[in-house]
Amino acid sequence: MNRPATPKYAIGVDYGTNSVRALVVDLADGAEIATHVFDYPSGEGGILLDPADHNLARQNPADYIEGFYQSVGQAVRKAGRVAGFSPDSVAGIGIDTTGSTPLPVDANGMPLALDKRFKDNPAAHAWLWKDHTAAAEAVEITRKASRGRHNYTSKCGGTYSSEWWWSKILHCKRTAPKVFDAAQAWVELADFVPALVTGNLDPDTMPRGICAAGHKAMWNASWGGLPGKRLLDALSPGLSKVAEHYAGRTMTADQKAGGLAPAVAEKVGLPAGLAVAVGAFDAHMGAIGAGVRPGTLVKIIGTSTCDITVWPLAEDLPDIPGLCGIVPGSVLPGMYGLEAGQSAVGDIFNWFVRHVAGEKSAAGGDGHARLTKAAEAIKPGASGLLALDWNNGNRTVLVDARLTGLLVGQTLHTTAAEIYRALVEATAFGALTIINRFQEYGVRIAEVINCGGIAEKNPMVMQIYADVCNRPMKVSRSAQTCALGAAICGAVAGGAYPTIPAAQKMMTGVKKTVYRPRPAAARCYAELYRLYRVLHDAFGTAAFTGRVDHVMKDLIALRDRVRKG
Amino acid sequence: MNRPATPKYAIGVDYGTNSVRALVVDLADGAEIATHVFDYPSGEGGILLDPADHNLARQNPADYIEGFYQSVGQAVRKAGRVAGFSPDSVAGIGIDTTGSTPLPVDANGMPLALDKRFKDNPAAHAWLWKDHTAAAEAVEITRKASRGRHNYTSKCGGTYSSEWWWSKILHCKRTAPKVFDAAQAWVELADFVPALVTGNLDPDTMPRGICAAGHKAMWNASWGGLPGKRLLDALSPGLSKVAEHYAGRTMTADQKAGGLAPAVAEKVGLPAGLAVAVGAFDAHMGAIGAGVRPGTLVKIIGTSTCDITVWPLAEDLPDIPGLCGIVPGSVLPGMYGLEAGQSAVGDIFNWFVRHVAGEKSAAGGDGHARLTKAAEAIKPGASGLLALDWNNGNRTVLVDARLTGLLVGQTLHTTAAEIYRALVEATAFGALTIINRFQEYGVRIAEVINCGGIAEKNPMVMQIYADVCNRPMKVSRSAQTCALGAAICGAVAGGAYPTIPAAQKMMTGVKKTVYRPRPAAARCYAELYRLYRVLHDAFGTAAFTGRVDHVMKDLIALRDRVRKG
Repeated sequence: MNRPATPKYAIGVDYGTNSVRALVVDLADGAEIATHVFDYPSGEGGILLDPADHNLARQNPADYIEGFYQSVGQAVRKAGRVAGFSPDSVAGIGIDTTGSTPLPVDANGMPLALDKRFKDNPAAHAWLWKDHTAAAEAVEITRKASRGRHNYTSKCGGTYSSEWWWSKILHCKRTAPKVFDAAQAWVELADFVPALVTGNLDPDTMPRGICAAGHKAMWNASWGGLPGKRLLDALSPGLSKVAEHYAGRTMTADQKAGGLAPAVAEKVGLPAGLAVAVGAFDAHMGAIGAGVRPGTLVKIIGTSTCDITVWPLAEDLPDIPGLCGIVPGSVLPGMYGLEAGQSAVGDIFNWFVRHVAGEKSAAGGDGHARLTKAAEAIKPGASGLLALDWNNGNRTVLVDARLTGLLVGQTLHTTAAEIYRALVEATAFGALTIINRFQEYGVRIAEVINCGGIAEKNPMVMQIYADVCNRPMKVSRSAQTCALGAAICGAVAGGAYPTIPAAQKMMTGVKKTVYRPRPAAARCYAELYRLYRVLHDAFGTAAFTGRVDHVMKDLIALRDRVRKG
Repeated sequence: MNRPATPKYAIGVDYGTNSVRALVVDLADGAEIATHVFDYPSGEGGILLDPADHNLARQNPADYIEGFYQSVGQAVRKAGRVAGFSPDSVAGIGIDTTGSTPLPVDANGMPLALDKRFKDNPAAHAWLWKDHTAAAEAVEITRKASRGRHNYTSKCGGTYSSEWWWSKILHCKRTAPKVFDAAQAWVELADFVPALVTGNLDPDTMPRGICAAGHKAMWNASWGGLPGKRLLDALSPGLSKVAEHYAGRTMTADQKAGGLAPAVAEKVGLPAGLAVAVGAFDAHMGAIGAGVRPGTLVKIIGTSTCDITVWPLAEDLPDIPGLCGIVPGSVLPGMYGLEAGQSAVGDIFNWFVRHVAGEKSAAGGDGHARLTKAAEAIKPGASGLLALDWNNGNRTVLVDARLTGLLVGQTLHTTAAEIYRALVEATAFGALTIINRFQEYGVRIAEVINCGGIAEKNPMVMQIYADVCNRPMKVSRSAQTCALGAAICGAVAGGAYPTIPAAQKMMTGVKKTVYRPRPAAARCYAELYRLYRVLHDAFGTAAFTGRVDHVMKDLIALRDRVRKG
């Protein structure tokens, strides 16, 4: 019903950390014809913070609801000005969100935070992906989840993260038991939005996407879904309630979650019953929008990164230690979705510009431009600096939130631009560490496609990544790969293309400019990377037995060599 | 001859890194009655730099000569306005300088840099204490100087520094042989100025102070003076020429180098023949001006620090590894002078304010005030940061210029003020390491007296030092302890007091405000210091066999504990 006669467009809705974006794209080539961004009005940049606890990061679910109406409604209105567009020319809607961003809901599936009893209780709001309050719970889950018949952490790198579903819910149960008790169920934001807009909010039956379930909630078909009652209640008696109110099966993002509910359809100016795809995480949709396929690593570089690739289910794949997740169907049906990531990339650059280098602009725009210009003139190795990119912990391959940044090599002449460049290089070394880990375990990386604002706008960063990784860096054609990937899923869910790869072939691509490694820089960075690995292993692992007293001297020797030309 | 009938004043002349100061003080209580500062006109802040080599730091000897005339002449002129002052009421002049700051001179004892053939040759100028071009030579000297019959480095901590006399002269011989060949001799700045103003410039006979000779040139009576020809020519054939044109004995700073030469006396408005004391290094004179005696450690805190104490010659004293020098009579006659130091303290704070935190003021004044205010509000341990104070290498106890700064514990919330405080704390940890080393080898430290601008003006720094070292921090009464110490030596050389201690008793003292350790802060810093020592030993020594992977986690745990109160 309501299938458009001539599908020409699809809509992707991308719930980011600070705002939600709706994108209307052409089915023929993925070109954007209209977009609208809605900034979350609550908190600071949409995030509810606690000055006494830097680990806390929550969001107001009301922002998500209003965000759908505003972003989609305005994007559709703007698209209306384009010749050939009409609401019934839209094939479907896809939705991606941050994650793991679970929220507690009542028996009707509505967020507890909207209940006036809980509106001021941070625990009743959405637990944003970068909330790190549950570090202790993550350690405990990691320890207990591998003990029983199933090694539940085997598909998420062997270490469960404080950023993920069960850590957060367990922390809520322990620190805000009233919220836990009042919650009928917990829902990932990626599942909540499709459920909301299709009017299927019953927590027991609402479609649960394999992406969120498999990557964050330890859902796996081989052990029958979520972890068993035994583990959950061993973590905390009664925690298994969360699993009881959770659909028995999961779905892939090319499937239809439902049709757009009439009341929602009216608000946004689209036909009721329009296909809405099953939700997935932004990075996974971004990988789709960037053209992910076997052999292609998609790096979505923003405040943090997600590094996504896929590998055929038919081929053998070992568990890969330190990877965030290895989940069948989480990106493309029929393929393992493999996710890695860096806990902070753009966030580190922003931190330095705003909190350290004393740039006045809150957005840091000018500071980035100024420091980038100065940093571009610095040769690899010439600063004598080396940094670890752990200001927000390390997601891959150490999976340890209780790590911090490190900078070594400072003299009395070290400049802010040199530090800025060292921080960029540190994130590149982190990126290389991830690529190496994939390849060590047989996952071939033949090309790297970057997307996100930094990939788009900062050639210096991309060139450093090419030099450090010693391989070409491509940049996605679309500036909005996450929303584009969501739109592709909407298009497939709505029947406009038979499969995601078929849609990708038409709707995705890379820019003409490819950043290629410069041999001299690559050689220098190979030396620096060896020192990065010394610090990485010394500070990040218990197994390191080497020495570090050569690090400062090696950096000085390299610096002096480079400076002398 | 020309001894004043009623000696009431003495003059101290303090040659610093950027300027020279003359101070006229009252013999009765050390009170300053007049002062004048002359900024060296050459280079940047008086320092000749090489943009291609950050290690190079030279000075124009012409600045020293003009600096004496200007500073002393103007100070005497200003003193003339004070009732009771007359030129013949001055008992004597003492001179202190930076060091090791050697300069090559011709057969008449005049600096080669004043010869027009060499005026543009940096090697012919004065090699300022902080010139680090001779790092390789220092390593070589350390290796070879302990091989023969005498262990020549045994009195300077076992490691010869790139900042010292022989390293610099050897580097000159190798890299600027024309300068070396043209030089009849080499003279420490501390010896050059007294020689110049007393008109005794013959390099073979001019008085050489034990302070410079013993601490920097490996002069020791037990092996007959400077190191033997065999070592010197093994370092480089012909280097022994430097020892041939060098007095056979050394003198202490309470002795008279000579009388003021008539031509000089006329220029500065003082009587010809006025007693001029043997020169010594600023820090050693500063220790005298701060009241050093057995059990008292004087910390002269400036861009770097010198930490000076004395110990009776009559008591046993082992060689102390890592100390810059242990030299009989270098501070007080009859006592070992013991010198340690930190390669950078104020320089690190200035670096951060000016080069990193983006403060516009070149002097950094406002930046220091702003960051200090914010840093004062931060509790010990609350930032989660830990730094090593090695931006300019480590002088004591590692004696290694090829070390660099390190900062660990950064998150995305770390502020510039937190880093600033961590850098202050790092220098305090460095200070404690020195105190501990003294005590480990039986040199009792019963009190610590601080002097220099930072001690005077930054109560936060002093309080952190008290908390970290867990002992009271006193501050010298005089703001100009180096010049005061020089004046005291001038007074003794001129016969106004029989000994330096007798003069110190009247002319030195401490301020009423004493910074006392706060028990809670001291406990917290004791924990942080253990982690500092882990990083110190891991990055600074080859012997470390422990692990460092606990450091970030311990810092986080301490931070979280402190923040929760």
